[in-house]
Order: sequence, then structure tokens, then C-alpha cells
Amino acid sequence: MSGLFITIEGPEGAGKTTVLDRIVKELERRKLPIIQTREPGGIAIAEQIRSVILNKENTAMDARTEALLYAAARRQHLVEKVIPALQAGAIVLCDRFVDSSLAYQGEARGLGMHEVGSINDFAIDGVMPSLTLLFDVRPEVGLARIHQHDGREVNRLDLEDLSFHEKVRKAYLKLAEANKNRMVIIDAEQEEERVFQDALAEIEKVLG
Amino acid sequence: MSGLFITIEGPEGAGKTTVLDRIVKELERRKLPIIQTREPGGIAIAEQIRSVILNKENTAMDARTEALLYAAARRQHLVEKVIPALQAGAIVLCDRFVDSSLAYQGEARGLGMHEVGSINDFAIDGVMPSLTLLFDVRPEVGLARIHQHDGREVNRLDLEDLSFHEKVRKAYLKLAEANKNRMVIIDAEQEEERVFQDALAEIEKVLG
Repeated sequence: MSGLFITIEGPEGAGKTTVLDRIVKELERRKLPIIQTREPGGIAIAEQIRSVILNKENTAMDARTEALLYAAARRQHLVEKVIPALQAGAIVLCDRFVDSSLAYQGEARGLGMHEVGSINDFAIDGVMPSLTLLFDVRPEVGLARIHQHDGREVNRLDLEDLSFHEKVRKAYLKLAEANKNRMVIIDAEQEEERVFQDALAEIEKVLG
Repeated sequence: MSGLFITIEGPEGAGKTTVLDRIVKELERRKLPIIQTREPGGIAIAEQIRSVILNKENTAMDARTEALLYAAARRQHLVEKVIPALQAGAIVLCDRFVDSSLAYQGEARGLGMHEVGSINDFAIDGVMPSLTLLFDVRPEVGLARIHQHDGREVNRLDLEDLSFHEKVRKAYLKLAEANKNRMVIIDAEQEEERVFQDALAEIEKVLG
């Protein structure tokens, strides 16, 4: 496959979407073949699987069932959208991939990173990103940004939630430490322009 | 869990359903608490997952996506139906379980027994049957029985299919060899009464 697979990771409130949009625009300006996506990405089968996950009536959904469904949707999105684009030589920028499952379901939800890793290994069958940008913010900073955006104050429930987000952050940092060959930490607490420049610089390195 | 988990495996045409029905009737006659099931078993979430698998419009379904969806449906059926019944002390007779995925998807479809095993290990999280009855028939015998039942003759397409069913049978026999602690081969080419008696005798052994 002649393309380049890049994934973006990090919690909500890290500013991934805003920076990603700017990167796409910049690469398009340079006439580079770029595709931006995120699961389920408009793939019919993956969308059907997501609607089972998100169906509000499915309150009895077991955490392992959910993890298997996420892996199934990931597989189909990969096969129908990511791999064909890579084969066509495109740069594929994917918002969230395997590391999200490892951090959120493996670590924070307590299913085990190794266990969630094994079903994801099956799902991706060796197709891993060449570069993963980890947008790192402390949970209280990310949370404050989301609330600023929503225009409401941080409440007691949000603070209880902090320990969950702490677990996610620790897991992400552990993954970055263990996968230095592909993962780069971007300090997402900086002002947006600096985050954008740092992220772009890392992408330029792998573009060569 | 105080109950007893028994699974029944084997190809179509092995006579599983007929014999299973007789076993259930016999155990009920003895006033034993028996539950007969098969995935998705009326579990809403598992039924939704199955309808994604069986949706005729999903022709782009990847084999790994399908295997992950089967594992997800298996997990939910296990959590909502099998485990509660075992906790209540029932004998649970389940038509097909992990071994079907290993034989059909792992071996015959070529995904690999070890690979399909890893996602199923995640799905079942240690809940394995105490006894698995493998209804063994040569593919040509099973196929002939199905056609006898449907009232049509064996055609060229069926014969091409034979190599697939040969792979399934070999995989099942390999599994039986590797799992002698729980798997018993039942000669399903015998007349129905003998198959029934052999199967019942094995169940009586584990009932003690």
C-alpha cells in the first residue's frame, strides 16, 4: 500500500477536530491526496453496527459485547474505506482508532488492555498507522474547554467523572511510551496555533 | 455456578435437532431442570446483531467483521441467558457454541483457528461447557440426509461444496482430539435410536 495511514487520538476537549480540519485544509492547499475519516465513516455495515451500540433500548449491553461490536465496525470501516484509500496512495487521517479502544474500554472500563488488544489485533489484521498523534490534555483542562463550549459550569457529576478521564489519560500516555516508533505526544494545552504547528510538523516528518 | 453447561456440535444433516429434542423430553420426564437454547436465542441485542449478519444487502461484509459479530452475539446470549440459567442450577443444552466458530470460520473459511479462538476467548471469558457432544457424520452422508429431507437430488454444486464440509469435519475431529476433557464424539451415522442412546449416556455420565 503506497499511502500513509495517520491516526489522531486523545480525549474530548483536546481540540482534535479543530486542528484536524486545519491540517486537512493545509495539506489540500499543497495538493496532497488527503482523506479525513472516523469510524463508522458512512460505511453501511459499520453504521448498522454502531446503531446497535447506540440503541438506547439496549441497556443490557455487556461491556465485552460492546467492545466486540466496536472492533467489528472498525474492521469494516478499515476494509471498505481506509485500505482502498491507502492502496490508491492517499494520506488517510483517521480520528480515533485502536488506541481509543485500548484506553477507554481496556483500561478505563476495566476490560484489560491485553484483552481488548487481542480482539483489535484480529480486527485490523496488521494494518497499523505509521503515525499516531496523541493530543494530550489534563482532564480538568479538557473538561473545562467542553463546558466553556457548552456554556455551562463544571458540576459535581463532572468532577466524579474526573477519575475516569484520569485513567484514560494514563492509558494513553502508557501506550505512547510503549509505541515510540509510531506515537507522538502533542501538548494540546498550548494555544491552538501551536498545537496545529506541532501536529503539522510531525506529519511533515513522515511525509518526508 | 451450580448448573451444567452442555454444547452440541456437528454439521447440518447430523441429526442434532431431532436427537436434542428427544434428550430434552427425556430429561424433563426425569424432572431435571433443563433449558434448551441456541444463539441468538431470543435475546434482543443478539437478535439485532444477527440481523446485521443476515441482512442480504450486506454483501460487502468482511469475514473478520462477521466473526466479530458472531462473537458479540455469543457474548450477549451467554450473559443474558446461559449464565443466569447456570446460576439457577439448570442444565443448559446449547446447540452450537465456540467450536462451531473454530471449525467453520477458523478452519473452513480460513481465518485461522487460533485467531478465531482469541476473539471467542474474549467473548466467553472462561465460561466453557463441561461436555460437548460432537455429532460426527461424513459430509456425503450428512448432505444426502439433507437432500432426502428436501426431496431433491445431490447436484454438481453440492459436490463442489464437499471440500468445504470436509474441512469442517477435520477441524471438528482435531478439536475433539485436543479437548478430550470435555469433547466426546458421537457416531451420528448410526440409526437415530442409537445416536440418542449414546448421547444420553454421555450426559448421564456428567450428571453423575
